[in-house]
Amino acid sequence: MLEINGISVSNGIALAAAYCLVEPDLSFEKVEITHVDSEINRLKEAVAKTKLDLEAIRDSAIYKLGEEKAAIFSAHLLILQDPEIFSALEAKFNEKINAESALDEVCTMYSGMFESMDNDYMKERAADIRDVCKRILAHLLQVELPDYSRISREVIIVAEDLTPSMTAQLDKQFVKGFVTDIGGRTSHSAILARAMGIPAIVGTKNASKNIPNGSPLIIDGLKGKVIVNATEDVQAQYRASLKELEKDSKLLKNYITLPSISADGHIVEIAGNIGNPKDVDAIIANGGDGIGLFRTEFLFMDRVELPTEEEQFDAYKTVLSKMDGKPTVVRTLDIGGDKELPYLKLPAEINPFLGYRAIRLCLDQQNIFRTQLRALLRASMYGNLKIMFPMIATLDEFRRAKAILLEEKQKLLDGGALVNDQIEIGMMVEIPSAAVIADLFAQEADFLSIGTNDLIQYTLAADRMNEKISYLYQPYHPAVLRLIKMVIDAAHNHGKWVGMCGEMAGDEVAIPILLALGLDEFSMSPLSILKTRGQIAKLNKDQLNDHLEHILQLKTSIEVEHYVKKYFLNLK
Amino acid sequence: MLEINGISVSNGIALAAAYCLVEPDLSFEKVEITHVDSEINRLKEAVAKTKLDLEAIRDSAIYKLGEEKAAIFSAHLLILQDPEIFSALEAKFNEKINAESALDEVCTMYSGMFESMDNDYMKERAADIRDVCKRILAHLLQVELPDYSRISREVIIVAEDLTPSMTAQLDKQFVKGFVTDIGGRTSHSAILARAMGIPAIVGTKNASKNIPNGSPLIIDGLKGKVIVNATEDVQAQYRASLKELEKDSKLLKNYITLPSISADGHIVEIAGNIGNPKDVDAIIANGGDGIGLFRTEFLFMDRVELPTEEEQFDAYKTVLSKMDGKPTVVRTLDIGGDKELPYLKLPAEINPFLGYRAIRLCLDQQNIFRTQLRALLRASMYGNLKIMFPMIATLDEFRRAKAILLEEKQKLLDGGALVNDQIEIGMMVEIPSAAVIADLFAQEADFLSIGTNDLIQYTLAADRMNEKISYLYQPYHPAVLRLIKMVIDAAHNHGKWVGMCGEMAGDEVAIPILLALGLDEFSMSPLSILKTRGQIAKLNKDQLNDHLEHILQLKTSIEVEHYVKKYFLNLK
Repeated sequence: MLEINGISVSNGIALAAAYCLVEPDLSFEKVEITHVDSEINRLKEAVAKTKLDLEAIRDSAIYKLGEEKAAIFSAHLLILQDPEIFSALEAKFNEKINAESALDEVCTMYSGMFESMDNDYMKERAADIRDVCKRILAHLLQVELPDYSRISREVIIVAEDLTPSMTAQLDKQFVKGFVTDIGGRTSHSAILARAMGIPAIVGTKNASKNIPNGSPLIIDGLKGKVIVNATEDVQAQYRASLKELEKDSKLLKNYITLPSISADGHIVEIAGNIGNPKDVDAIIANGGDGIGLFRTEFLFMDRVELPTEEEQFDAYKTVLSKMDGKPTVVRTLDIGGDKELPYLKLPAEINPFLGYRAIRLCLDQQNIFRTQLRALLRASMYGNLKIMFPMIATLDEFRRAKAILLEEKQKLLDGGALVNDQIEIGMMVEIPSAAVIADLFAQEADFLSIGTNDLIQYTLAADRMNEKISYLYQPYHPAVLRLIKMVIDAAHNHGKWVGMCGEMAGDEVAIPILLALGLDEFSMSPLSILKTRGQIAKLNKDQLNDHLEHILQLKTSIEVEHYVKKYFLNLK
Repeated sequence: MLEINGISVSNGIALAAAYCLVEPDLSFEKVEITHVDSEINRLKEAVAKTKLDLEAIRDSAIYKLGEEKAAIFSAHLLILQDPEIFSALEAKFNEKINAESALDEVCTMYSGMFESMDNDYMKERAADIRDVCKRILAHLLQVELPDYSRISREVIIVAEDLTPSMTAQLDKQFVKGFVTDIGGRTSHSAILARAMGIPAIVGTKNASKNIPNGSPLIIDGLKGKVIVNATEDVQAQYRASLKELEKDSKLLKNYITLPSISADGHIVEIAGNIGNPKDVDAIIANGGDGIGLFRTEFLFMDRVELPTEEEQFDAYKTVLSKMDGKPTVVRTLDIGGDKELPYLKLPAEINPFLGYRAIRLCLDQQNIFRTQLRALLRASMYGNLKIMFPMIATLDEFRRAKAILLEEKQKLLDGGALVNDQIEIGMMVEIPSAAVIADLFAQEADFLSIGTNDLIQYTLAADRMNEKISYLYQPYHPAVLRLIKMVIDAAHNHGKWVGMCGEMAGDEVAIPILLALGLDEFSMSPLSILKTRGQIAKLNKDQLNDHLEHILQLKTSIEVEHYVKKYFLNLK
């Protein structure tokens, strides 16, 4: 029995035989050529074939994974059309080398360039370039790349790395999980694994060398480890856990139509976070009480220019209509910082997380903001719209944003348009200053929504993506809990409701505390809605209140975690 | 009368005639050469002469500005010895071009490389390289560079840019201020201007084109503007203000030997922040009650390896001895993030201000930390040492740092060394989480020192160096004031004292509020000590307390500023 540790990018347990991906032989010789033109033609043909492949993969990915996840293949198709890469290729042919060598050298140069950037996102783009070049190379060499969609028995894929296109070909029915040597939490493969809902362990460094093909594997996504050739005992144990998980997940289906209510009758709202209109289906399928966070950035990404008011209107209208009167909280544009839009040509920043983004950008570039607000206001007639502003740090910012919204509303009304007059105007509380003066905000906002991902990283001054200091991402840090309490108390004192749309809202250790603190709306990944509703149904708020004072006196994150696990989760 | 706005890098008022720097003609032709060796020799000679110039300038700068500020000339001397640049130069000679062209092309390449980096610090290094190359080029062309140290009448220097070496040659007796087109708050010129204590306006974009040589100028450092050809009225007004300032500054001299005490007898400590042992002189000259922040980074910078325990011991001993029993708070190493030490080879980070730095690095690389602690403990016998840890976010970090300190102390005692047994162990409160749970820290730390520069930027999630969002650096934001109050109250409840060592401690608008809140120690630039002592001497703490509750109810930074100015500064 061998245990291999790595980074778990997706929870869950999987048991199956290892399916080791053996890379096809794509080796070639560097050859001097005489007929440059015929080499260029060979390359052009290979590129054309690759384009057909990618279009097919993209279409299948749209079907299996949805539009947003399939967008990476559109990105791959864009690489195929990148004029810079192709002029670099043409220049290479001046050296009179064969197409394989020219391609390989240009690919190495470009992927190396991206890899050397101080930015995880750009580093992952290096993988995209290599992926595309590999496809072209295979066509040049007339080598067939393995078709992973043909796997027809239950397996756990083991590979040095999974390219995004491989991952998208995997069939969830047979692929129970995967294990890779490289990759991190932000790699495409990780994102796709989460979208497919299969467990995956990445960054194991050398799993692919140590796991024999066909050997029995266990992925423990909770602990971030892979067990090879587990003993009968261990296998039985995991099989039991898996059965338990599956039973739980079946039982949870019962909650789809039940209200979100604690054992002692306290009603909350359990809503979902979405990134685009397609995601609404998952909220409905999981019986969500509403949308607590609709991130509108998707409309602005993977494009060459700003979306028009009409495009935005259509998207907002679709979401509001589908939600059929259920509360739908839309966050205005949170772009800038790490989420770049090339066409806005924003200057690079030394600390993008502390930079020019979200409401800061919207108040500065009001044309973008006003267009979005108009689209939202016009769509408001189709459902129960609530609008909130991201990254509010000062009262002045909130007042200015709200004034602009009301100005656009008045202009629309003056022009004879219909606008819902029940739209609530709220804000994200994700900056410490906003939490500390939540009482002042609660007097002017209709609701507050706590964005814990950012709130935690600012409160502890620790970039949550920075592996060197990941120990500082502490949702149960007493300061974080106190700030959350300040926000909830402040809002309730002024008769306003409070939501939470960070990952913490769906975290089983946090949920008992948040329920006790009086959080009104829990918004999370749609896949977590039923689990949360099930957990809350078993909790007694009155009984939790007795523990709350004690929990708020605990001094460290670990103490809080142990306390909650001991008293409310029956776990050590 | 013409008004030109820019960035004020140094307060104060100056009136004098414009002295427009005209750049010497350093133009040359690109020539093909035959005797490469003789060109290389010409270059070597020019480099040798430049070395002599720079050594002379450095020595004069040490005399006028102190060791730390003169360090940039050591950096320039290092550029002269950079093997990479010189191998690039040698390679250039393969092209058989004259030394001037070779130098210019290599200089353009290297400075361009630094300029394109996403890091203000690196960008400023481009200016250093150009500065050094210009000196070499002048020697090659046998053109004498103007010697600004010969200016012998009162002037305000106007230039497109001031190179660090120009700035260092300026004689404060005659140079009353300067105005430049480019540059920012972090440029060398700005730092040097502050060190010289003269007003300067940088980043005016085009002042050098619009200001005629010899025209009367006024620099208003408070408002960040330059007035050209001011009317008689305006000139008289500024002359009066300047006289007022000078009178005030003379009157303040009386406070050197007076205690730091409010009009109604409340005693505080007014201490200074220092960056190296030389700075102690300025604290003593200004009658500081102690050192509230000794930044120890200087010992680690501009070097090729870590300083030894002995080197550190000597520096700490010098400072403690000079302070002659007055309280001396030493902050342990706050390196990493934006303060890089090349020899530590730290990975670049996406958000260095939220990254691996200060105590996070010290707890991880304990050899560095333990060496510093041993040096401090051994030096403790020479004065009144207090040690504080930077960037504490969790109780666990403070406990670990303190345990390591006590461990090293025990080891020293076991080895027979003498260690002062009165050393107080405290911490910086500069991360929101530390402020929010200050009550927990106050139970375990001997004192708390609020670092407002960082606390403000994390509380508002705004990089204070980022010009695009500089409006968010708000020391009087109600959330900041509340956090400061939480810290002071928490410490006092547990019988501990609280200091402040950010810029806010010397800020005249903040001082009345901080005094009312009960801050015990105000630590600031030594140049601000007397002004602060004079201000506090006129304030009545009891009377301030009556206003405090009202101030803490104000909703925005601007409201607070106006209120304090109206009631306590007699300014609008």
